[in-house]
Amino acid sequence: MHFEIVARAAGSSARAGLLHTPHGAIETPAFMPVGTQATVKGLLPSDLAAIRPQCVLSNAYHLALRPGAQMIARRGGLHAFMRWDGPMLTDSGGYQVFSLAQLRQIDDRGVTIASHLNGRPRRFTPASVVRIEEQIGADLIMPLDVCIGYPSTRDEAEIALERTHAWALQAARAQRRTDQALFAIVQGAMEADLRVQAARALAGEPFPGFAIGGLSVGEPRDLTDRLVKLTAAELPADRPRYLMGVGEPDQLLAYAAAGVDLFDCVLPTRLGRTGYAYTSDGRLNVARASLRADPGPLDAACDCITCARYSRAYLHHLIRAGEGLGARLLSIHNVAYLVTLLRRFRESIVAGAGGTALRCEQRP
Amino acid sequence: MHFEIVARAAGSSARAGLLHTPHGAIETPAFMPVGTQATVKGLLPSDLAAIRPQCVLSNAYHLALRPGAQMIARRGGLHAFMRWDGPMLTDSGGYQVFSLAQLRQIDDRGVTIASHLNGRPRRFTPASVVRIEEQIGADLIMPLDVCIGYPSTRDEAEIALERTHAWALQAARAQRRTDQALFAIVQGAMEADLRVQAARALAGEPFPGFAIGGLSVGEPRDLTDRLVKLTAAELPADRPRYLMGVGEPDQLLAYAAAGVDLFDCVLPTRLGRTGYAYTSDGRLNVARASLRADPGPLDAACDCITCARYSRAYLHHLIRAGEGLGARLLSIHNVAYLVTLLRRFRESIVAGAGGTALRCEQRP
Repeated sequence: MHFEIVARAAGSSARAGLLHTPHGAIETPAFMPVGTQATVKGLLPSDLAAIRPQCVLSNAYHLALRPGAQMIARRGGLHAFMRWDGPMLTDSGGYQVFSLAQLRQIDDRGVTIASHLNGRPRRFTPASVVRIEEQIGADLIMPLDVCIGYPSTRDEAEIALERTHAWALQAARAQRRTDQALFAIVQGAMEADLRVQAARALAGEPFPGFAIGGLSVGEPRDLTDRLVKLTAAELPADRPRYLMGVGEPDQLLAYAAAGVDLFDCVLPTRLGRTGYAYTSDGRLNVARASLRADPGPLDAACDCITCARYSRAYLHHLIRAGEGLGARLLSIHNVAYLVTLLRRFRESIVAGAGGTALRCEQRP
Repeated sequence: MHFEIVARAAGSSARAGLLHTPHGAIETPAFMPVGTQATVKGLLPSDLAAIRPQCVLSNAYHLALRPGAQMIARRGGLHAFMRWDGPMLTDSGGYQVFSLAQLRQIDDRGVTIASHLNGRPRRFTPASVVRIEEQIGADLIMPLDVCIGYPSTRDEAEIALERTHAWALQAARAQRRTDQALFAIVQGAMEADLRVQAARALAGEPFPGFAIGGLSVGEPRDLTDRLVKLTAAELPADRPRYLMGVGEPDQLLAYAAAGVDLFDCVLPTRLGRTGYAYTSDGRLNVARASLRADPGPLDAACDCITCARYSRAYLHHLIRAGEGLGARLLSIHNVAYLVTLLRRFRESIVAGAGGTALRCEQRP
């Protein structure tokens, strides 16, 4: 695994990179669609192939509970199971332990949860999660971390941070496969000094990349802005930075300018399923009556198959009629929109424009 | 519109035909997937293109209520609206008036219904339905007919039959476009003599094709068998016969052998959405625990993209996880299964085998 910086923007901390993996190079900055349960919701690999994302996410916690990591290993790993042969990343499930598990007990050595599927208790440790991720076989893997909500106390933030740091080192020691890049995750809740401290401590370890976790959990936007920029600036410039779970178009551009290389978010498919589309003019409610006879595409600047082939009138009809095809076409568009946004941003860095031309086209 | 018989089976009434339409020739016998609301549920035209159905169905009643036939006409007709450029057929909505309308009054000149969408009253006559179908612009169109349930009285059957016959003639007189083939529909409920009488009466009129309606409404299978065979035998041999709403694999083969040329049914996509797949060994419940780690395809003899690319284990996982992709992959398979079943049956007729080799592979 090797990260190569191809170009740097002149007026910002943005950079164009190549993260080489066994399944091809990820051109960064990149938006990675989320396929939690071994499928990007509603999309086929053939839909994905047309969108050309650089990397697809999945989730070790979800797959361990169903269908089981051993089963996936027996089917040849997740790439073969879901028929996606490009780069993949698995999140550890630290966030799901926090958000989904019905009962959880966290101690210094791991977490015990009652499965959100059947209530059965299950133990996860930093080492067991790495083992699961080695069975699943993604190219980039995340260690088990401790996520806390917003707001939280200073004490909670400190304990979560210490455990996350210790677990990252335990995960690294447990790693057996040499073809997977294990990142470390920076936590620290909303405490700026804790984030700086965590980033500096992890930066001293030989992790091939770093994730920024625990943001976009309900805090105000200016706080997210400040903490992302602060944390990114503390992380080693020669290794990739991945901001977890943030997906508003203007945030992607602002944080890519702050030097973040990788992004993921469930928002584009979730918005698609509820009838919303990203456009250059902001979010569009496709069920709105004014679209009923609109012959134009969702977004004239978009070259996804939804925009190339279908009118707003047709999409409006599908959403109004409750037809699943509507959700699917909007999901395709929304994922393509974010993937393309960062692809064009990257092109502008490589071309020497630093992504500024794009930034001002985009409205919050 | 021109129907050409290419080959006849030796041991049965089956025939291989070509029904020429402005959007290409339909190779018959053919199974036509149902796209009631201007979309075959969950499938994109690109999915459909891979399946290569000969013709796609839509529904004048549904489209008239939403998004409106005029709106579709302004968008260039249904072919352009839903981006399907092969042959299309619209059913009139006689069946939907019977099954969906909250309130309906039927008289000799048409029906007044309260829309199932918003309760507003709306009048449909044989002439107004033809006008709607001319705005929608399918290649094959059906006249407004009167459907009744099972069981029904002799009186109900006679009245429905008389109206259906009179309305077919009124529809033909109302027709203005010359590039659409208006079929007549044979009703007659479960009364064999009424079916024969209706078929003979309509056969004397210059309709370019005939539909057999009002079957598969809850009656026992042997009654369906008898009435289809009886009715098909009374219809002119030189014109296409379309059996409405029947989609079990073994029925398609049995009725194609009785000389039926066109079939449609919502069953393959409905079964797909509920987790069932057609296979050469009968219907498969994909959620069944025994499929959990099964590396094989749904059906080894099927060449659809679902069977070519995905394991039963992966499909089982998707259905268990409630992921929409599962429903979609099963729908693709089920539609492809029926389309392929009749394509191969046709090939066997053309090759002189009369479809018999295929028939015995198929189990009820």
